[in-house]
Amino acid sequence: MALAETRLWAETPTGAPDLAVQAARILDRCRAERPRVHAVTNAAAQVLTANLLLAAGAVPSLTIAADEIGSFTERSAALLVNLGTLDTERRAGIPIAIASARSARRPWVLDPVYVEASPGRLAMARLCLAGGPAVVRLNGSEFGALSGEPATDEALAGFARAQGTVVALTGETDRISDGERLLVLANGHPLMARTTAMGCALSALVAALLPLADDPATAAAAALLAGGIAGEVAGERAGGPGSFVPAFLDAVDGLDEAAIQARARVG
Amino acid sequence: MALAETRLWAETPTGAPDLAVQAARILDRCRAERPRVHAVTNAAAQVLTANLLLAAGAVPSLTIAADEIGSFTERSAALLVNLGTLDTERRAGIPIAIASARSARRPWVLDPVYVEASPGRLAMARLCLAGGPAVVRLNGSEFGALSGEPATDEALAGFARAQGTVVALTGETDRISDGERLLVLANGHPLMARTTAMGCALSALVAALLPLADDPATAAAAALLAGGIAGEVAGERAGGPGSFVPAFLDAVDGLDEAAIQARARVG
Amino acid sequence: MALAETRLWAETPTGAPDLAVQAARILDRCRAERPRVHAVTNAAAQVLTANLLLAAGAVPSLTIAADEIGSFTERSAALLVNLGTLDTERRAGIPIAIASARSARRPWVLDPVYVEASPGRLAMARLCLAGGPAVVRLNGSEFGALSGEPATDEALAGFARAQGTVVALTGETDRISDGERLLVLANGHPLMARTTAMGCALSALVAALLPLADDPATAAAAALLAGGIAGEVAGERAGGPGSFVPAFLDAVDGLDEAAIQARARVG
Repeated sequence: MALAETRLWAETPTGAPDLAVQAARILDRCRAERPRVHAVTNAAAQVLTANLLLAAGAVPSLTIAADEIGSFTERSAALLVNLGTLDTERRAGIPIAIASARSARRPWVLDPVYVEASPGRLAMARLCLAGGPAVVRLNGSEFGALSGEPATDEALAGFARAQGTVVALTGETDRISDGERLLVLANGHPLMARTTAMGCALSALVAALLPLADDPATAAAAALLAGGIAGEVAGERAGGPGSFVPAFLDAVDGLDEAAIQARARVG
Repeated sequence: MALAETRLWAETPTGAPDLAVQAARILDRCRAERPRVHAVTNAAAQVLTANLLLAAGAVPSLTIAADEIGSFTERSAALLVNLGTLDTERRAGIPIAIASARSARRPWVLDPVYVEASPGRLAMARLCLAGGPAVVRLNGSEFGALSGEPATDEALAGFARAQGTVVALTGETDRISDGERLLVLANGHPLMARTTAMGCALSALVAALLPLADDPATAAAAALLAGGIAGEVAGERAGGPGSFVPAFLDAVDGLDEAAIQARARVG
Repeated sequence: MALAETRLWAETPTGAPDLAVQAARILDRCRAERPRVHAVTNAAAQVLTANLLLAAGAVPSLTIAADEIGSFTERSAALLVNLGTLDTERRAGIPIAIASARSARRPWVLDPVYVEASPGRLAMARLCLAGGPAVVRLNGSEFGALSGEPATDEALAGFARAQGTVVALTGETDRISDGERLLVLANGHPLMARTTAMGCALSALVAALLPLADDPATAAAAALLAGGIAGEVAGERAGGPGSFVPAFLDAVDGLDEAAIQARARVG
């Protein structure tokens, strides 16, 4: 598929409304419906992830224990599997969580953190991919390790088609591809990269929005758009990377359609 | 026991002084005596728990490892056992911690987090109950799963008597029963439920106050009153759920008798 | 060695420049070179450690899993081994991390948290010491347990010489000895002791600066000086122990040579 074939959300044949409006509506649904999200995530991300989900209206649970991860996944509306700090307990629990999500038909997000840094983690990520995540959220280095090629728009689309998933690549700009469409989001703030687990937490927000959006790509776009805009709001208020975190959660809590419309930079 | 038999703290035959005054004195003792508290708690709660204990003047330790949890429990003045993120390591360590607390005569608090969500966790909670916690701190769903009945005042009292413990139920109002007396606390702020592990951290504060109060019910009441009032103070200062957490810890640190007296809503 | 033989940094025969200037230059190098630091640290310290490293310009990773800890250590410029929450996974991973650091010639820091509280942890700390840490960062109780004697200046120097390491003792004042020289740093703020894992996080900052400083003692001095000054700045801005943490990270991010020069209290 040539790059020229990629299309913006607003131009799809489905006549989807403007992404900013969609994102605001999905966030409102999240606040009203309070979806449960089971987040299997790394030790540095657990608190921020739970607090971001709560700030967005969702209800988090976090256990990684093999003998209860299935129960928690089944009672949730969506699952996050993040491969950071991949210890024995997580390695045992993750396949059970994915199997439970599949049998209970819960959509899930894969976040292959630092997959370029450890061969065992790369093998685990490939195993997880075979479990059919609705969205894979990752950065450029992680995409390179997982796909074997640089993160060009064509490579994202090819990977999405080959794996039957949506790729949500975060970085200078965020790039989301479902294999046909490409969406580029230019919101965000440099302090987001100066705070541990910001990307991990946003992956959990993608999971929270999966049951509430028309399709996984729109859920990913809504979550990353909301995160990027909240990051901008927080960046304007914060005095540095420390005060950025509470300001970011406050901004997510306060995000409304007017702010999203005014700030969205969707390409 | 009929509901009419339940009594307010201020009306007990023991002539206990006003709860607000008692709570302020117990908090002052905590700041002066700096009790060590060993907190076996879940991965989302560890940092907030340690920081709440430090803000209140106590000294936290947190290890869950089976081969050192006994040493840490014995050198502490009180123990918290929280069942969140109940992995292999925690499942092995918790019985050792409880046995050490019993043999060293350290009072302890049970917090059966999400016990309604996993059969294995419910079984573990029942085993822990048999170990004689001084206080069980939990919410309505958890009480329902653990006791098999809705969390009415009669059910709280019945459970407290049957288990020989104090029940501290948190929610819209906090309700504390030792089987005879019932205390209703109406302080708090909606942002407390928008922050992960707030209830878990307050359970650790109950543990910290156990060695300093006349009885476990008063320790629970003092901790939940202090927490609810600090929550109100923080809620007035915070711009959302993110800035609420640092504001809450600041408020706990700054809590004095005047503020407790002025704000306490004890029913 | 008599105490009279100990010398201030500024008086060494190497003609080392003023410590404040050195510290500022090392911090600037950290921001420019962004060293990777693999931090094996306790559950209460992981988030603050990662955020402190990011605030200082370094790039953290945190896994404790035995089968990937070697890969993460080898791709890092330095390693931290902190013995807090010493569970099965950490006990298995730590020796592998140390062996990887040795074979890849990466300098590393040992932080023997709460080594006085558990015999198993003390044994582990001694085993780690044999692995040749460049710096041991600890408090007075921990030094007493590890060395068998009170933390006098002579004892610090003797321990440093016997172990071929640098001792960085934190407390009312920070005292750094490489066996010959002694440096006393008097910066800091009482709220640093009211926040969980502040010392643990500073140990990781020592690790980050190891590859950037002339010698391990200077790296330790630069990290503790920066931490103490950032603590003072944050203490002046914070409303209590809760708001102190974000203010501390902001202050680390904003630290420049002028502030370090103006505030450094080096004895």
